[in-house]
Amino acid sequence: MVSKEFIKSLNDKYNIKFNNLELLEEAFTHSSYANEHPEGARDYEKLEFLGDAVLELAISDYLYRHFPNLNEGELTRMRSNIVRTEGFSEFAIECGFQNEINLGKGEEKAGARHRKTLLEDVFEAFNGALFLDQGMKKVQYFLHMTVYPLIDQGEFDDSRDYKTDLQELLQKDGPVDIEYVTVSESQLPSHFVVELHINGEVKSKGEGHNKKAAEQQAAKNALAELE
Amino acid sequence: MVSKEFIKSLNDKYNIKFNNLELLEEAFTHSSYANEHPEGARDYEKLEFLGDAVLELAISDYLYRHFPNLNEGELTRMRSNIVRTEGFSEFAIECGFQNEINLGKGEEKAGARHRKTLLEDVFEAFNGALFLDQGMKKVQYFLHMTVYPLIDQGEFDDSRDYKTDLQELLQKDGPVDIEYVTVSESQLPSHFVVELHINGEVKSKGEGHNKKAAEQQAAKNALAELE
Repeated sequence: MVSKEFIKSLNDKYNIKFNNLELLEEAFTHSSYANEHPEGARDYEKLEFLGDAVLELAISDYLYRHFPNLNEGELTRMRSNIVRTEGFSEFAIECGFQNEINLGKGEEKAGARHRKTLLEDVFEAFNGALFLDQGMKKVQYFLHMTVYPLIDQGEFDDSRDYKTDLQELLQKDGPVDIEYVTVSESQLPSHFVVELHINGEVKSKGEGHNKKAAEQQAAKNALAELE
Repeated sequence: MVSKEFIKSLNDKYNIKFNNLELLEEAFTHSSYANEHPEGARDYEKLEFLGDAVLELAISDYLYRHFPNLNEGELTRMRSNIVRTEGFSEFAIECGFQNEINLGKGEEKAGARHRKTLLEDVFEAFNGALFLDQGMKKVQYFLHMTVYPLIDQGEFDDSRDYKTDLQELLQKDGPVDIEYVTVSESQLPSHFVVELHINGEVKSKGEGHNKKAAEQQAAKNALAELE
């Protein structure tokens, strides 16, 4: 059962209050739990089916309106980076979904609660439930506090490789020593901080949900100064 | 340019009146035309990007609500039959889109106006434009007059193979001669009528947008009588 603390935190953090709490419960119920409780528990798979399409449209709409200068190919690539990455699992953790999942005993033992694909599914199912309960506007409101800020930060934009660009710029007059040093690293939610050292001196910092993203950001920051 | 007759027919047939006619124009402009008119024509590709997601959600939502007894796998298969078939091109033709497409001269000569993939793209772009102009409710209203009736008729439901079921039922006591005869066939929009002959006698009829669908329907009709 979804905890009272979680219901309160959804309200406090995201201003979300479900009218139909059964939908919320369903979004957090894995099939292994439903199989052990045949008297009524419904698993999240149908909500995931719907939530997948809800996220696809919400994100497409956001990209279409906020990146008017990108062409169709660039928009499609960014959308696919967002919906096909493991990113959704990190949002699920950030939103506190992980502890609320109803799992069967076997799957619990097998560590399913920490499985990225399962966390992604739950994130989709939650958005499907929110869409049914309160419509697209509320889904977009929720995404404005979770997914969209990372889009704005360029986390899913692979159209430019800042590390390569920086390297080319720095080394055009001869060899330069470039090193990315991870100075902080945490999980759940995963967060990395790296420093960019040029010839042994700290040039810039970067943060991100994985090492690659943090390094790209450090390179981007350095380029902003140099270009 | 989109014709006045078409704008009138959208209003008469579907009760659709665009606030922003530039969006409608964009939805019908192929890149080959835009390339020949660099002074301002925008091609439909970005609207197609958006329309793809609009249709995915509209259809997912419809399936979720109208087929409560299907499981997630069946819903997913049906959704994919609808959005991945050439069906959209036939809807485009039925809605009179074909004559309105702005094409470059070379593509016109090459017969692009009759290319199924191009017609599908235009159908997606039109729904993207309608979504931007008037929101999801209007898109669903439009689909209620075009796509949803065919869903209700089972055109995209491949969960049961009626031809095989009929054959097994008829031949359980020995060989029976089963033949499907196409009695009418038209293109643009494509429409097939077949008769099912059992031991040389007409047993049932079926209609559909292709031969396979028409045969399935004939078998389904025969089964309804026999079972």
